[in-house]
Amino acid sequence: MVVGKSIIRPDSLDKAAGRTKYTDDLCDRNALVAKICHSTVTHALVKSIDTSEAEKIPGVVKILTCFDAPERTFPTAGHPWSTEPEHQDISDRHVLEKHVRYYGDDVAAVIAETEVAAVQAVRALKVEYEELPFVLDPQEAMKEGAPLLHEEFPGNVLKHTEIHKGNVEEAIKEPGLICVDGWYETPTVQHCHIENATCFAWEEGGRVHVTSSTQIPHITRRCIAQALGVPWGQVRLVKPYIGGGFGNKQDALYEPLCAWLTTQVGGRLVRLECQREETFANCRVRHAIRYHITSWLRPDGTLVARKADCWSNQGAYASHGHSICAKGMGSIPQLYPCENIDVRGWTVFTNIQVGGAMRGYGMPQAVFAMESHTEDIVQRLGLDPLAYRRAHLMQKGYFDPFSKNELYADSFNQTLDVGSEYIDFERKYKEYQHQTGDIRRGVGVAVLWYNTAVWPISLETSACRMVMNQDGSIQLQVGETEIGQGADTAFAQMAAETLGIPFEMVHVVSCQDTDVTPYGTGAYASRQTYAAGMAIRGCAEEFKRHILEVAYRYTRMQPYLMDIQDAKIIRTTDGRVLMGLGELATTVLYDLDHNEHLTMEKSTQIKTNAYSFGCCFAEVEVDIPMCQVKVLDIINVHDAGRIVNPALARAQVQGGMSMGIGYALAEKMLYDPKTGRLLNGNLLDYKLSTFMDHPNLEVRFVENSEPTSAYGTKALGEPPVVPVAPAIRNAILNATGVACHEIPMRPHLLYQEFTRKGLI
Amino acid sequence: MVVGKSIIRPDSLDKAAGRTKYTDDLCDRNALVAKICHSTVTHALVKSIDTSEAEKIPGVVKILTCFDAPERTFPTAGHPWSTEPEHQDISDRHVLEKHVRYYGDDVAAVIAETEVAAVQAVRALKVEYEELPFVLDPQEAMKEGAPLLHEEFPGNVLKHTEIHKGNVEEAIKEPGLICVDGWYETPTVQHCHIENATCFAWEEGGRVHVTSSTQIPHITRRCIAQALGVPWGQVRLVKPYIGGGFGNKQDALYEPLCAWLTTQVGGRLVRLECQREETFANCRVRHAIRYHITSWLRPDGTLVARKADCWSNQGAYASHGHSICAKGMGSIPQLYPCENIDVRGWTVFTNIQVGGAMRGYGMPQAVFAMESHTEDIVQRLGLDPLAYRRAHLMQKGYFDPFSKNELYADSFNQTLDVGSEYIDFERKYKEYQHQTGDIRRGVGVAVLWYNTAVWPISLETSACRMVMNQDGSIQLQVGETEIGQGADTAFAQMAAETLGIPFEMVHVVSCQDTDVTPYGTGAYASRQTYAAGMAIRGCAEEFKRHILEVAYRYTRMQPYLMDIQDAKIIRTTDGRVLMGLGELATTVLYDLDHNEHLTMEKSTQIKTNAYSFGCCFAEVEVDIPMCQVKVLDIINVHDAGRIVNPALARAQVQGGMSMGIGYALAEKMLYDPKTGRLLNGNLLDYKLSTFMDHPNLEVRFVENSEPTSAYGTKALGEPPVVPVAPAIRNAILNATGVACHEIPMRPHLLYQEFTRKGLI
Repeated sequence: MVVGKSIIRPDSLDKAAGRTKYTDDLCDRNALVAKICHSTVTHALVKSIDTSEAEKIPGVVKILTCFDAPERTFPTAGHPWSTEPEHQDISDRHVLEKHVRYYGDDVAAVIAETEVAAVQAVRALKVEYEELPFVLDPQEAMKEGAPLLHEEFPGNVLKHTEIHKGNVEEAIKEPGLICVDGWYETPTVQHCHIENATCFAWEEGGRVHVTSSTQIPHITRRCIAQALGVPWGQVRLVKPYIGGGFGNKQDALYEPLCAWLTTQVGGRLVRLECQREETFANCRVRHAIRYHITSWLRPDGTLVARKADCWSNQGAYASHGHSICAKGMGSIPQLYPCENIDVRGWTVFTNIQVGGAMRGYGMPQAVFAMESHTEDIVQRLGLDPLAYRRAHLMQKGYFDPFSKNELYADSFNQTLDVGSEYIDFERKYKEYQHQTGDIRRGVGVAVLWYNTAVWPISLETSACRMVMNQDGSIQLQVGETEIGQGADTAFAQMAAETLGIPFEMVHVVSCQDTDVTPYGTGAYASRQTYAAGMAIRGCAEEFKRHILEVAYRYTRMQPYLMDIQDAKIIRTTDGRVLMGLGELATTVLYDLDHNEHLTMEKSTQIKTNAYSFGCCFAEVEVDIPMCQVKVLDIINVHDAGRIVNPALARAQVQGGMSMGIGYALAEKMLYDPKTGRLLNGNLLDYKLSTFMDHPNLEVRFVENSEPTSAYGTKALGEPPVVPVAPAIRNAILNATGVACHEIPMRPHLLYQEFTRKGLI
Repeated sequence: MVVGKSIIRPDSLDKAAGRTKYTDDLCDRNALVAKICHSTVTHALVKSIDTSEAEKIPGVVKILTCFDAPERTFPTAGHPWSTEPEHQDISDRHVLEKHVRYYGDDVAAVIAETEVAAVQAVRALKVEYEELPFVLDPQEAMKEGAPLLHEEFPGNVLKHTEIHKGNVEEAIKEPGLICVDGWYETPTVQHCHIENATCFAWEEGGRVHVTSSTQIPHITRRCIAQALGVPWGQVRLVKPYIGGGFGNKQDALYEPLCAWLTTQVGGRLVRLECQREETFANCRVRHAIRYHITSWLRPDGTLVARKADCWSNQGAYASHGHSICAKGMGSIPQLYPCENIDVRGWTVFTNIQVGGAMRGYGMPQAVFAMESHTEDIVQRLGLDPLAYRRAHLMQKGYFDPFSKNELYADSFNQTLDVGSEYIDFERKYKEYQHQTGDIRRGVGVAVLWYNTAVWPISLETSACRMVMNQDGSIQLQVGETEIGQGADTAFAQMAAETLGIPFEMVHVVSCQDTDVTPYGTGAYASRQTYAAGMAIRGCAEEFKRHILEVAYRYTRMQPYLMDIQDAKIIRTTDGRVLMGLGELATTVLYDLDHNEHLTMEKSTQIKTNAYSFGCCFAEVEVDIPMCQVKVLDIINVHDAGRIVNPALARAQVQGGMSMGIGYALAEKMLYDPKTGRLLNGNLLDYKLSTFMDHPNLEVRFVENSEPTSAYGTKALGEPPVVPVAPAIRNAILNATGVACHEIPMRPHLLYQEFTRKGLI
């Protein structure tokens, strides 16, 4: 068994030693440097750009403005393409914009021999704007008379969807119901991956080649081709090792612009590297989503009806659009099933940074709302938080007719058991309920529910190729990307297990190259082990079958009497080793009678999905006069099916918990209401939580192997971030009796809340 | 029809614009630099190497001497591996040598931060030698008491083979036979490709990665692994665009040393770039082969018996060994068939540069001997050179039981017709026979015969993979390499023709990467269009079949009612266009019902071979007092089957003719008999012929489509060089009556010959 072992990542030593090559390491130092001129107003039409002073700067090669850019638009979202127009992503971006829709929008680009010349030239550009009124809040943006961002979207509504079940209006007529009503507000935050978005592009052989730090090479390639208006095969995209993405790189960011720039300078190599400030301002952010939830319950807690409205702040361009809001909305009827449900969601354009994919994809917002609301219910009804959840959460056997997902195990109770025992929840919750004094403690819980991969929302597919070397080792190629999470290690473990070779004999081709990498849509939707796992298993099974058929020629044993174990062809009937796999590969490759290069490639379509579950328990200490919260202890417990590599899985969960702590307590992008300008778009002013702010991050797994999954796995990449903020919020509530309805729960907010509650 | 058109190479614009990336362009400028310390004696044992002064030089990272090098040996020849030990190449190289066998052998290497430091350190090394006697001539080396280069090879004979047919001793008893006897001597020459051998290596993921300018990526990778003593899958080799090879890069040159060096500095990137002097001294050379041919003929020219002995000067190490000598020997019984034949060949180690593959692979030497000897026969018997050849050359229908090759057409007569007509041979030959005066003219002819690819001498195999893009264009991957000859263009034409798409829609993945490129043995043996052609045709046929099966799902037409033409799925019964290929590829890739990434990969073994034919006619002007020869006109006529791309084929032939002119008149590596040192190992002293020395190089083709070939093609890469030197030699004979028995026919030689003949 290779799957299930905490094998050390093969890329770890190289990364520790600084040997690993990232996008920027691979760019020729003689590349031309591109720098972007960003708008200094929030909403405007560009009237003119005077390039005369900039053009005088030595080293400037070419200046291109929004007036030079093609009229053609392109979509940026990292979704598989749909051949049905109504399911295609909104195509609303130009490589440079004449109508700027946020402070920092791209109006021109300078290409220069050096970075200094490029920066100087950008500063020397004189842009004249016709300013327009702007709007930052989605509900404000929906009002009549609000500034309109995109003519095609009246009321600035990108999309509105509703989910209905039963009849809320009728149901709430039941006498004696208690109505619990709450607003829950989440902030705009940024991914803050280590490696900024960076890419370089050149023309060769009449095609455009782009190397980029992207999570989604095949999709980004298509977006570039759409931006350039060329057949998609005219673009090649290469993805080297990347320093994190968390969803930000699940969008075509500056690859289309960079690709266009190279076509404007005769195909010369052009490098476009984002600064950290551009990662904040010009890449993607997590949508701020405002939820309003109203629940009608019987005194015993039975949920009779629920209404939830939400408004997702899309920012200036469509990117992933409504799908993020919709994913969160979809959890509401399922997490706490209820006969009568109305959920309504709006994704709304505003003049802020563009909302895109970020770890959790709408679920951190929805679960913050839902699990805060659940705690509000528990408080209002005087119930036990754990008992309430155990009684009302989705139960074993729950089946969703749309995704065909089923809760096969008693996952919620099992994870709650582990987490509550670790944190000693029952005892502490009661003990902490009626504290006095300045320093108080509290425990809180929140659960999570998550789908795996994207079927049936959209296409779910992965392809895998295996190339055998003469020593029986293989190269493994998939389109799903290593983005720092350890995907390659998990893939190698899977391939080794199915093929029957040691882990060390699987060499994952980590660098995706759309010219030769089998089609896979990339790293997102926590799909790697589930979707790519199926492609790997499918390919490996077929490869093994083929290898045993070839082995028959040399061993004379029927294929069904043989197996591959530890890189040896064995006879299953008596366990005898017939020949080494390397010997077989060498023999057949050089066989003068019947030679063959052993390879296998297989496309796999995935038409299943899988529920992933978990919970978080947090214990906090609240300093009431200082309005400070310290997380004393925290545990995430996940049922992500079978764990491929416990050490890597633990690291993945810890990373998510860290992100969740920052989401709960610190992070928020702030806007100047007067100018619409982002105020803290850098790592000095944006308070990213670090390991100094964290206690021990405890991680446990409940391994209910997923029956639909090639290796029993299901989503684990994104889920860890989801329940952390509400668990901390509920712990603060337990400590202080103060129910926050907004994150981050920074001292500013707590001062306000504590004052209102009379604590200070 | 795409095959047969003079389509412009897709890489030409990039190469002209300097955009194409060669090995050295791709190396990180921070790479460590390796420089080799070469021996300053010709044959010796290294007693000691004092590194103390060298180590003091700032920037020196590591010095490794022959005493640090592994005892392990490795073979270098660019042959497919054989699983049978007796067919494996001789393994006689260490990465550094304690027993130096030629002036310039590798005794130590310095790795430094900069090139200057590395060069200084190499100079500062103090090497103490125990000198041994040396030998430069193969026949001298075979004598008893001659210095021995390799203990395993007594008499310095690497290998000796004989070909016998009939009974020469009996046959020559026939009364009235005329015996014609001659010695023919060819020089050691060098390939002089533009790009010197260069490579860089590093470790990543526990494997050794090498990027190298090699013709044979998959084979060199194996040689590196053998040198390092690691499983072959532990090595990855990448081959970018390369600036020529002509066979020199059909050997593992410094890749094994470079790979070993990186393992000695913790996997840091190490660059090893040959200087031009190292290309001469330390890479490979064309074997000097001495032929002694004796023929017994009836007065009408009928060949009754023939004896040929040859001695091939292998130089210091085995490299391709006897196979080059053997290939030339093999032509002797076939070119002019004869009932009684004795051919004996010896490949002999001497203390000069290592003989390896070079364009023509033993055939330029053999054909110089044979076609000079034929002319000597014609002269002696007073026959007509053309008529004699037409009568006695291999005739239509000739069948070789070993290779199963057959002469399907009247190729010799056809090519001789075209060539003799162009040069007006019959008239001029007679006219020039009895000239007087200082300036005389002459015409000469020589023919050539060449096999295609390497079956049945060794494994012949190629594999191909095609990856379809959403626009119906494809990437084409084969292991056969573009080395400047235009192979990629020919491959793309073939794929386009079989798949039914325009040429522009085939994107050849020119860079081979042994991790992902289907196994192919590389560029050698004029096998590209024949061997890779079969892989491409086989893959394309199967891919097309599969595509039409997929098309059935959308068109509902049976696959056998459809075809692909001009990237459209058409119904063959009425020619109706059913859908675009791009539309099909897009639809199936994103099909929610049955999605698939369209790719195809196929290994093809080749168990046929094909005769390639041609001839050269040259007209020269000889300045007798000045001992100068000027080529006035020259034509090569080839039957290389169907010509894939006439413009590229013409360029290929012209390159070979240029090389042949240099071989005839100028090029020779010279040795100091006292020290054994190469005297002219640089481009100043080595007289490479240039286009200033050439007349118009006329090229014609006789296209007899080869019946065994996927696209009707056969060898054309190497043949053009083969007949040029004997044609010029025979033209000088026609002009002056002087029969040279040696090339190059430089003024030095001609002065000697003209003096002997009393012309001056």
